[in-house]
Amino acid sequence: MANPDAAPPLRADARRNRDAILTAAREVFASDGLSAPLDRIAKLADVGRATLYRRFPTREDLVRAIFQDNIEELQAIANELGDAPEAFWLILEAAVQQQRDNLGLVELFTRPPAPSASPSVGLADVRLPWSELIAGPLERAQRAGVVRPDLDPSDTGALLLMMGAMSSAVRYRDDADDRITRTLTLLRDALDPTGGPRELVPAGLA
Amino acid sequence: MANPDAAPPLRADARRNRDAILTAAREVFASDGLSAPLDRIAKLADVGRATLYRRFPTREDLVRAIFQDNIEELQAIANELGDAPEAFWLILEAAVQQQRDNLGLVELFTRPPAPSASPSVGLADVRLPWSELIAGPLERAQRAGVVRPDLDPSDTGALLLMMGAMSSAVRYRDDADDRITRTLTLLRDALDPTGGPRELVPAGLA
Repeated sequence: MANPDAAPPLRADARRNRDAILTAAREVFASDGLSAPLDRIAKLADVGRATLYRRFPTREDLVRAIFQDNIEELQAIANELGDAPEAFWLILEAAVQQQRDNLGLVELFTRPPAPSASPSVGLADVRLPWSELIAGPLERAQRAGVVRPDLDPSDTGALLLMMGAMSSAVRYRDDADDRITRTLTLLRDALDPTGGPRELVPAGLA
Repeated sequence: MANPDAAPPLRADARRNRDAILTAAREVFASDGLSAPLDRIAKLADVGRATLYRRFPTREDLVRAIFQDNIEELQAIANELGDAPEAFWLILEAAVQQQRDNLGLVELFTRPPAPSASPSVGLADVRLPWSELIAGPLERAQRAGVVRPDLDPSDTGALLLMMGAMSSAVRYRDDADDRITRTLTLLRDALDPTGGPRELVPAGLA
């Protein structure tokens, strides 16, 4: 979807570069954290350092662009699902997938404020867009009786962060998928106790 | 409690130094993360660098000692509570308090494996002692019907880590306490759906 604050459209080759850089940045930040060398991102994107710095003058610009893309992706899902009561849960699951294995996001939300040499993007930057995005679907799910009435958008943000941290912690385990699915089921029981307890997928290693 | 693998008892002044160092290390790792300068720990503990390095030759030794203390503290609580069905929940809450605001713990569990210049303590080191500690109380709570029967010790470890990440993320917010209490209530509903949904404390900021 169009973002009214966005810069004018890029030419096709510039757009390709931008997309390649963002894809690479997602991958590198996710696996190595936010202090990963930017050169690694340029190399993975197959662009020169100069191109990377022209498009994204600071590390912070890269992080913000990734967030913006994430929010737009979720907004597109929300638009497609419309007023369906299950939209709330589907958007939350899509957001969990975005956070999945993403060490960079976990760092961003949990580290001390504004350390030197780190981008000053933080929880506050995503809390508002996320809350605005999820407020409508949450309210409709609550009106339909499938989510507890006392939950607020901030609670869902906290649960998202927790899933991000949890999936980062288990990402090298053989049973990571089952672990994540089990935890998501537990959270669903927490948010919608009327349907629970739901069956958990079997655990792998104890 | 005595640890059979521990070194022989220290003289009183050495014990005082050790305790002061560990108290300082907890505070510094918790607020600044695991890469905080060890000199800051020595200064806060009011001991010389030589004393710190004699007692804890590596950063890893400090981290392991903190974990060991945490586990012993939880074991003492477990021993005191004995076979009471509510022991499971009280131990879990005590463990959440230990993790509370603890950036170091979150880093330890979520960062990539064995980066240079970081202690190689990791999730595997705490998973086993925690699982051994919580297995009995969990089983008794399940037999008493106050915790869902399909939960395993690993699930509780995941929830602990998630609470640690969540409390780190909100620690500079005015409503941090309420946020943490709300999330703990949600988790309790997830683990013991027979009693839920429980009432959430009011949220502060949205």
